Amino acid sequence: MLPGTSLAAGTAAKAKPAVPFYGAHQAGIATPMQEYLQFAAFDVTGDSIAHLRKLMATWTRAAAAMSLGRQVGPVRTGSKPPADTGEAIGLGPAELTVTFGFGASLFTSNGKDRFGLARHRPAPLVDLPVFRGDQLQAGISGGDIGIQVCANDPQVAFHAMHDLIKLGSPVAVPKWLLAGFGRTGNSTVQPLPRNLMGFQDGTANIVVENPAALDAFVWAAEPGSPFWMRGGSYLVARRIQIALTRWDETSLDGQQKAIGREKLSGNVLPDVPKNSHIFLASPGRNNNQRLYRRGYSYVDGVVAGATAPAAGVMFICYNKDPREQFIPIQGNIADRDGLSAFLTHIGSSIFACPPGVTPGGFIGQELLG
Amino acid sequence: MLPGTSLAAGTAAKAKPAVPFYGAHQAGIATPMQEYLQFAAFDVTGDSIAHLRKLMATWTRAAAAMSLGRQVGPVRTGSKPPADTGEAIGLGPAELTVTFGFGASLFTSNGKDRFGLARHRPAPLVDLPVFRGDQLQAGISGGDIGIQVCANDPQVAFHAMHDLIKLGSPVAVPKWLLAGFGRTGNSTVQPLPRNLMGFQDGTANIVVENPAALDAFVWAAEPGSPFWMRGGSYLVARRIQIALTRWDETSLDGQQKAIGREKLSGNVLPDVPKNSHIFLASPGRNNNQRLYRRGYSYVDGVVAGATAPAAGVMFICYNKDPREQFIPIQGNIADRDGLSAFLTHIGSSIFACPPGVTPGGFIGQELLG
Repeated sequence: MLPGTSLAAGTAAKAKPAVPFYGAHQAGIATPMQEYLQFAAFDVTGDSIAHLRKLMATWTRAAAAMSLGRQVGPVRTGSKPPADTGEAIGLGPAELTVTFGFGASLFTSNGKDRFGLARHRPAPLVDLPVFRGDQLQAGISGGDIGIQVCANDPQVAFHAMHDLIKLGSPVAVPKWLLAGFGRTGNSTVQPLPRNLMGFQDGTANIVVENPAALDAFVWAAEPGSPFWMRGGSYLVARRIQIALTRWDETSLDGQQKAIGREKLSGNVLPDVPKNSHIFLASPGRNNNQRLYRRGYSYVDGVVAGATAPAAGVMFICYNKDPREQFIPIQGNIADRDGLSAFLTHIGSSIFACPPGVTPGGFIGQELLG
Repeated sequence: MLPGTSLAAGTAAKAKPAVPFYGAHQAGIATPMQEYLQFAAFDVTGDSIAHLRKLMATWTRAAAAMSLGRQVGPVRTGSKPPADTGEAIGLGPAELTVTFGFGASLFTSNGKDRFGLARHRPAPLVDLPVFRGDQLQAGISGGDIGIQVCANDPQVAFHAMHDLIKLGSPVAVPKWLLAGFGRTGNSTVQPLPRNLMGFQDGTANIVVENPAALDAFVWAAEPGSPFWMRGGSYLVARRIQIALTRWDETSLDGQQKAIGREKLSGNVLPDVPKNSHIFLASPGRNNNQRLYRRGYSYVDGVVAGATAPAAGVMFICYNKDPREQFIPIQGNIADRDGLSAFLTHIGSSIFACPPGVTPGGFIGQELLG
């Protein structure tokens, strides 16, 4: 409106520090969880490994710049479109992390070796089985490349995804995209959050301050994984809808027995039920395997005809080898534990996240050459 | 997982203060904008004014409690469902506000006087016209009652909406629900944010520190409004999709001319184009009327077939009389200003938000008796 009053810039945005992008591991895996998620899967058009290499080099450079709170390119471009879309200007790094992973379809798709990478497909990068009770939707499952963006400012997270989508076009086409908030606990230095079922989430999770557990359960290593995955990890993402109305109508006793914990205190129930979630998912019932979770809540409008929000969990976990962790553990609880009656898995994806890189390199370089 | 390590509660959640729920006006209108939105519209089942009265009394009590960071009822309920769903426990008030409004269909629906309220329908609560270029979807437009929930914690905002939905069942059925972030500027004491087009939003907005402007343009008053709307306001909500790909492919010059401002500085262009958004929306071109905006950005997956997120603006404005403000101003810019080529209005709603109440009263009491 013109001439209108002009607002002073006001107080500076709360500066949040940068998480180092470069390193032995990709940022965003063993990073204390930020509050906001943008997760997208992309399909790669064509079959040119040169295009794929250029895509990953471009995305790596952009992710490194944005992790420092920088724009991906100039905004003052006159008669050309701005290189950076601009909505995160002034917001700082906000602890942004960008984590890249390669889907199975990048290696082999309908039996075709699209990029000449088939022989490098890691054995742990299996096609996930369909578990009992799964109601998977193809449009929100899979993809050639997955990108997990996390930040402590939702606009910084959105901006990063927005500009990665823009930079990837037309080689990488976004297949699905989901925003999240309300993280799982994964650090001893953060308060433990509650999920949308009102229970604390992450009480027994692996914490980033425990490098031995990360080595044992998160970081890929030879000989199980190929050389190019050394220090990487296998990301499993499951979009899980919560039947909130049914849950809300369940007694406190029923809720606590389904999970195996007290709602308010988070303490394990004195006589933990044998079909509770924490009992069946426990290491003692799963060959001493543990699952490192890094999930977020999401809300997606209302359920048509229901009286509850269409809400759920974007369950994300990182595995040293999903054949030893996610798959048998989920196989053990799917449609069996007390929680399953309230959950429906509607999206399913697995990505091989390569190790980190040093400046000048790009994510996936050891694979793509 | 069992037995598992147990996380310490860690640092206490950042306490954010409470916004007073009670007062002459409803909170959430002349409140400095919080960072997060949950907006839902409900349809009321049946035609019992007693049910409607009870609904508003229940919702008012719950909103007042949650605004103080309290639960809406006990969680330790044993063999009964918890009264509060619990996901905001420990998060504090987070400056939560809950703002209620009545849609036109509550007064008259298909010519029927459902609750005996038809004679109290305020003249300013008109059916919004269809503007040039509108592509409205009935499923995300209108509703008998609208609730705007805002907070500085997205989980606090979600919890409030979740529990209001639960408490409203089965009398009030949610019709649509939208989450938002990335507020408009509406206060001199906050930094001016950028929208998803990368421009600062709110430079010339009415600020909450200007009571004269609020009186002139926001608060309903007799004789234009009926007695029960004295100190209330008319909320217009428009879900506006942004053609982000087209926008991102537009030159900086083109973007700036469409809006009429410099992207980086926010300054009005030296020779502001006569078809720019800020020129055509300016008070000088609109009978000296001004529009008090309180909008949020949203992201809703990806546009099928497009290479951009399905993102937009939940445009919310509060009017003393929309016949003098939103309607003529939008009529002046729709499909005409430089910005319109990049925007599509897909949802449209109007609600009459009654004044505030004192403890013991409920929102809408003067109307519902």
